[in-house]
Amino acid sequence: MKFIIQRDLLLESLQHVMKAISPRVAVPILTGIKIEALPTGIKLTGSDSDISIESFIPKEEDGLVHVEAIETGSIVVQAKYFPEIIRKLPLKTVEISTDEQYQMTIVSGGSEFHLNGQDAMEYPQLPILHTDNSFEVKHDIFKEMIKQTVFAVSTVETRPILTGVNMKIDNGDMTFVATDSHRLASRSIKLDQDFVHIQFDNIVIPGKSLAELNKIIDDTDDTITISVADNQILFQTKNLYFLSRLLDGKYPETDRLIPAESKTSVKVKTKTLLQAIDRASLLAKENRNNVVKLETKENFLQISSNTPEVGQVTEEVVIETIDGESLKISFSAKYMIDALRIVEDEYVMVHFTGAMRPFVLYPENNHDILQLILPVRTY
Amino acid sequence: MKFIIQRDLLLESLQHVMKAISPRVAVPILTGIKIEALPTGIKLTGSDSDISIESFIPKEEDGLVHVEAIETGSIVVQAKYFPEIIRKLPLKTVEISTDEQYQMTIVSGGSEFHLNGQDAMEYPQLPILHTDNSFEVKHDIFKEMIKQTVFAVSTVETRPILTGVNMKIDNGDMTFVATDSHRLASRSIKLDQDFVHIQFDNIVIPGKSLAELNKIIDDTDDTITISVADNQILFQTKNLYFLSRLLDGKYPETDRLIPAESKTSVKVKTKTLLQAIDRASLLAKENRNNVVKLETKENFLQISSNTPEVGQVTEEVVIETIDGESLKISFSAKYMIDALRIVEDEYVMVHFTGAMRPFVLYPENNHDILQLILPVRTY
Repeated sequence: MKFIIQRDLLLESLQHVMKAISPRVAVPILTGIKIEALPTGIKLTGSDSDISIESFIPKEEDGLVHVEAIETGSIVVQAKYFPEIIRKLPLKTVEISTDEQYQMTIVSGGSEFHLNGQDAMEYPQLPILHTDNSFEVKHDIFKEMIKQTVFAVSTVETRPILTGVNMKIDNGDMTFVATDSHRLASRSIKLDQDFVHIQFDNIVIPGKSLAELNKIIDDTDDTITISVADNQILFQTKNLYFLSRLLDGKYPETDRLIPAESKTSVKVKTKTLLQAIDRASLLAKENRNNVVKLETKENFLQISSNTPEVGQVTEEVVIETIDGESLKISFSAKYMIDALRIVEDEYVMVHFTGAMRPFVLYPENNHDILQLILPVRTY
Repeated sequence: MKFIIQRDLLLESLQHVMKAISPRVAVPILTGIKIEALPTGIKLTGSDSDISIESFIPKEEDGLVHVEAIETGSIVVQAKYFPEIIRKLPLKTVEISTDEQYQMTIVSGGSEFHLNGQDAMEYPQLPILHTDNSFEVKHDIFKEMIKQTVFAVSTVETRPILTGVNMKIDNGDMTFVATDSHRLASRSIKLDQDFVHIQFDNIVIPGKSLAELNKIIDDTDDTITISVADNQILFQTKNLYFLSRLLDGKYPETDRLIPAESKTSVKVKTKTLLQAIDRASLLAKENRNNVVKLETKENFLQISSNTPEVGQVTEEVVIETIDGESLKISFSAKYMIDALRIVEDEYVMVHFTGAMRPFVLYPENNHDILQLILPVRTY
């Protein structure tokens, strides 16, 4: 194997596949990166068996030459050293070659590395996905969906199914739902007309897979193709192939959690509320749940917290509009901050159904985003 | 106590005194910040007994009003909460007051905090320094001196005196020396004529104190006043008072370590050498000493490293000039990188006195900065 490649392109691809590589993996060869020189370009692969990522650097693209002098072949090299070496090379191009003892030589300017590698035949084959269940969404919309839901997945393994995001598609509407059973985040979009026949209700994608995917795909209006098979999901962009296992089990019915009516509806400035809750939670650092109280007053919300050994705080947030009965409720400041952070509108609507019932938040102008939070009993 | 203050000024002062505060301190009240409202302004104090910092915010400065409506008094509040509260307040000004139960009230916009405090009378008095041994240096020069030496202090407590920087003043020359017995860094400056009578040879300032001081003083040509007493040193700027204990014991004679002559002198580009050694050390991550080899060739330095289980690397660094005999030597890449990082000149001079003797580096145009490194036996 031999090729000369643009260092920055190689580095970018390496950073992508590194997202799938874990130093604590059961199969030792998976701590390495597979590098294949094909007649059409260079393919890199990383995998921890849960997630597998392939990144392709085409020989030429848009009239630009990325890779030269390719002699085909393949090798696996240690992920611990290879990317860092490439990052620090002195020139903009690098020549990479291998010999029959699986030793890789990396040359750039006055710098010459010899790295011990392994036979690429030892690297596990990625499964090939057989499915007709494919559809497309735009990168930027898809990134939004991840960002607006994935933070709400459970981080504890007591109910493994809750560590994933539930993807549902019904009648052309695609919805992501995540919940850790204390709060829930949901986001819907309309799919393109072409995909109105696609239907899923129990696809659960590991939160970690979506978080890593979100770091890799760029924020453009390019198209990402999503294909679903029995226990795997594939995300494909122009030069990227991101395969994740799906979670086993039945995702809970979440629709019935969302209150159909509200008893108190409040409209406030998103940022003002977020900052007031953030401050009110400062003294509550010690207590695990970080609980704050909210009380509706004449024309403001009063948010307060009291930690006797440290002190107390009260915050007033001006109300734009309020409908319904007055209310006292307590909840986790952390959940409320997480929920408010993804609201980009200037105003947020909060709908309460009494002190003991879950309450919901929407951005003022976007009812495709919903955040639900369970209160904490203190009154 | 009561006053209204510009939030950003209070925050800046808090960040200064926080540098002296440690949550793991033997005297519980020292986990707090002392706040004093004086007729002339607000004084903050933080201390861990080794370092004490006072920061003063004058009522008025350069015609600008910083503090209003002062009612004198004092209190100690928890450093864990107070700075974070101030940082997150909604308005640019904040009103602070205390009551007789040592409770502090903080009001800014719709935000109101009550924090439990302690009687400031319980806070230890800072020692008053009696000395005539005072002299002045410019901030920017003093920061350079710290940066160019403090990294070389020992981080292990086996010889406590080596965790400090040795400050010597003789005949108007002030020198900082730091060594961990494997490498040494030294920097000299000429003091102003007024201070030619000042003489010290065994003042040893804890490295940690200088590192913290360097973070606080700004990079201007303002003047810092340094006063030395028996076991303490005081650094004073316009609104800052930084007191540190000195280390006990005799600092070793270091002058005799510096070779008087050299057998091989090399001039190379600083950055090229630094980057080549950084790369050569990549494969040596595993071995504790991070050793690389250097060999003089016809018109380049060859730097190499070999870790059989990982691979090997050779780097070529073009030589500008070379005098003397050819050489093979091994040394710690980390020490060499530390030494080269503080060289700002385009070229660095390296003077070797054989493979087993310490070698020295100077910036090409500044012999007031000297770095010495002990080689490692491998050949």
